[in-house]
Amino acid sequence: MKRLTILFVLFLATSALGQKPDQHAVVAEFVDLLAIPNLASDAPNIARNAAAIRAMFEKRGVSTRLLTLDGAPPIVIGDVRVPGATRTIAFYAHYDGQPVDPAQWKSAPWTPVMRDAAGNEVDWRNAKSLNPEWRIYARSSGDDKTPIIGMAAALDVLRAAGHKTAVNLRFVFEGEEEAGSPHLAAYLAKYPEVLRPDAWILCDGPVHQSRRMQLVFGARGVVDLELTVYGPVKGLHDGHYGNWVPNPIVRLTHLIDSMRDESGRILIAHFYGDVQRISRAEQEAIAKMPSVETDLKREFGIAATEGEGLPLNEMLMLPALNVRGIQSGHVGAQASNTIQTEAQASLDFRLVPAETPESVKTLVEQHIETQGYTIVRTTPDAATRAAHAKLIKVVWGSGYPPARTPLDLPFSNQIASLMAAAGHDPVRVPTLGGSIPMYLFQQPANTPVLILPIANHDDNQHAANENIRLQNLWDGIDVYVALFEGLR
Amino acid sequence: MKRLTILFVLFLATSALGQKPDQHAVVAEFVDLLAIPNLASDAPNIARNAAAIRAMFEKRGVSTRLLTLDGAPPIVIGDVRVPGATRTIAFYAHYDGQPVDPAQWKSAPWTPVMRDAAGNEVDWRNAKSLNPEWRIYARSSGDDKTPIIGMAAALDVLRAAGHKTAVNLRFVFEGEEEAGSPHLAAYLAKYPEVLRPDAWILCDGPVHQSRRMQLVFGARGVVDLELTVYGPVKGLHDGHYGNWVPNPIVRLTHLIDSMRDESGRILIAHFYGDVQRISRAEQEAIAKMPSVETDLKREFGIAATEGEGLPLNEMLMLPALNVRGIQSGHVGAQASNTIQTEAQASLDFRLVPAETPESVKTLVEQHIETQGYTIVRTTPDAATRAAHAKLIKVVWGSGYPPARTPLDLPFSNQIASLMAAAGHDPVRVPTLGGSIPMYLFQQPANTPVLILPIANHDDNQHAANENIRLQNLWDGIDVYVALFEGLR
Repeated sequence: MKRLTILFVLFLATSALGQKPDQHAVVAEFVDLLAIPNLASDAPNIARNAAAIRAMFEKRGVSTRLLTLDGAPPIVIGDVRVPGATRTIAFYAHYDGQPVDPAQWKSAPWTPVMRDAAGNEVDWRNAKSLNPEWRIYARSSGDDKTPIIGMAAALDVLRAAGHKTAVNLRFVFEGEEEAGSPHLAAYLAKYPEVLRPDAWILCDGPVHQSRRMQLVFGARGVVDLELTVYGPVKGLHDGHYGNWVPNPIVRLTHLIDSMRDESGRILIAHFYGDVQRISRAEQEAIAKMPSVETDLKREFGIAATEGEGLPLNEMLMLPALNVRGIQSGHVGAQASNTIQTEAQASLDFRLVPAETPESVKTLVEQHIETQGYTIVRTTPDAATRAAHAKLIKVVWGSGYPPARTPLDLPFSNQIASLMAAAGHDPVRVPTLGGSIPMYLFQQPANTPVLILPIANHDDNQHAANENIRLQNLWDGIDVYVALFEGLR
Repeated sequence: MKRLTILFVLFLATSALGQKPDQHAVVAEFVDLLAIPNLASDAPNIARNAAAIRAMFEKRGVSTRLLTLDGAPPIVIGDVRVPGATRTIAFYAHYDGQPVDPAQWKSAPWTPVMRDAAGNEVDWRNAKSLNPEWRIYARSSGDDKTPIIGMAAALDVLRAAGHKTAVNLRFVFEGEEEAGSPHLAAYLAKYPEVLRPDAWILCDGPVHQSRRMQLVFGARGVVDLELTVYGPVKGLHDGHYGNWVPNPIVRLTHLIDSMRDESGRILIAHFYGDVQRISRAEQEAIAKMPSVETDLKREFGIAATEGEGLPLNEMLMLPALNVRGIQSGHVGAQASNTIQTEAQASLDFRLVPAETPESVKTLVEQHIETQGYTIVRTTPDAATRAAHAKLIKVVWGSGYPPARTPLDLPFSNQIASLMAAAGHDPVRVPTLGGSIPMYLFQQPANTPVLILPIANHDDNQHAANENIRLQNLWDGIDVYVALFEGLR
């Protein structure tokens, strides 16, 4: 015990880990980056984000370049090359963000605001010190610009301590992850020399809900789809025609319910046929994960969960069918007594090995057809509507398969040890519930790919009032310093 | 045969029936009335409608007055009194209209436009004659301002022919029928001397889908409700929490499906327990009604119907559960991977004797509770949400019970004969599918109440692009002339 303490003190004395960044400067640089709108489809602002990120890293002596593909947001590359280094370790994050519904936000999504734990705005620029429980509110503050500023700040710490890395570092910042990374595969094919490092550390997603850092070995895949079912070609008085003319909302609710029960179980035939058994190592890791269910239920204001009482992390090892939006007619004061002409729902599936978007598409469409529907891909004309008893438009979005990395690779152990030395012994998580295109990074086969998130779990990512808790930013910087310095 | 013809010619020669109104003048006066917005909640415009209607009838020598109640649209009363008359027959219509969604309209809802059968706008003011297949498009053109202009024009025809009525006529025009007539009962209680005539003819709804006029002996009742079910207190990433945090959309779809199947059958326990058996007279009338199903399916662009193949008019003898709107999150380009905080649906029930809104409310809420829900009446706070596994806000709108009048009353036969003499032998319909507060008019008990609609069945009432076909207006005027003149 004593010996370990001495070793740790020696390590601290010779490392940059004791050093801290200039917190005001880090936040000032970060809010400038967060102020740039970053929808993947917003090409001019995406270009501004990419230029700002290049400038951030160039001024730290990192050699940067843009990878480009027609019609795609650029990938920002930064290289820290070390003479004599035999390995290149890549650090990934993404600089684009989810769509926003400004009406739902307390402050504008791209006007960063600092708030204290009570939600009151804070004049942080004139504060003597920054309370680590304060949070910066802005789109992508949690998902996923924090790793970008965190890595830049870690480089400052390293330089201030006069330390260097022993391996080559490669920063890889994508610009369309929230749009489903439709061009990532093409990028990897076009730039294999840049995008085939010896190992990847993907910095995305939140830390464990217990606030402990985590090291994640997999991610669920994803594929989304839009469903439109049809009623009469014009809105009809629901008194004169109700219970004779088909109600498209009722058809849609029955279709949804035929696909999924209230406990989250997917009812589509053969849907679990492709799902791999959980390995013993995964089972053990899950058993060791801190229990968060009671806290989460309180935080989310829910008294019950799906999954019939199973813990969150067991449920995340399974596929999920999420209904993320449904729309037809009006509710409340705008409701009128009308049989609607159509009803729409937006769904996504989260996939686990060895499911793929293609395998899911096949099963879902077989299921829809067994419910009596004829599937079309474009909005049907009146004649097509009149010719089919049950008609549905199914439009699939982009998606990608899930991925997992074995839990006991040497690379994994090295990363976990460095994190532990920095005071952040990680929870080992077999899979994220969310999706990042991890499978693409695994090529060539067996390339180690780990996910190391730093954002707080309650960062409202993908929703209104997204935020980053300052302590998570500082912890992230510490861990990046430890990895940059310690990786061999 | 010959004798009948002679009698009929004699009748025509001595009647105003052969006379026609000045069609251009009628349409000009009508479009001015349609140009006044008429949501029941829009008090200033409701007052403008009432004033315009009074002026229309005053200039025809009808004595008018307004019945008023605090906070309610006024009822416009017009009286044609005949010295020595022993009976007063009331003619009812309503001057308010359904809410509008202007984005769905081809032209603005309160800017009347004439279009030909191909949908092209027509310069009717400069047309030599008005094609009877042309239609006027405007909110309430079909439902329910046409009877108002029709009765006014019928008085002109009568006066031009120098004819008088043999009974007292009383016009009764309501201003909040589309809001569920929340004050009609109070009006009837406050003004019994005005609102208890010897018989009622309620002019609302469409003619038969075969385009034959109809005489209707009942109406379904109605009651609507808004349902809100709850998910987490904030939107959550559906990857990280999907299939563990309850999805409120899925809860709502399951609740809806537990209440109603795809064929229109209501699954709520005991729901059909209050439904009266169809009488023999009603069965015979339904059997004689023209078959419209094939035409309607073509017109509505549907290949199948609810009710497992039963004809429309048999289905209308049963209660209906309509889902008129559903809303949560977004669909299409605005969809995001979020578990929503709540999901809402707007429903209405159409009721048949001897159901009442109260009996339905009791059964529906019992059903919701058997689905595991705790019912609240106002938006629950976070603590309430966290305390109940399944929570639902149920808010009932106003409603009223159904009503039916026996098919073989002497008054019914008199009306049908006069219509037949005017060339419009009516289809006898045991009940409208839609709702009008007919039950209120039946007091004192056994007061004859008939419904005599004139609007075309394809008038898009309650929906966008509501319209009236000119021939239906002319037919309506003919029938009003026949009744005003022939009623004894």
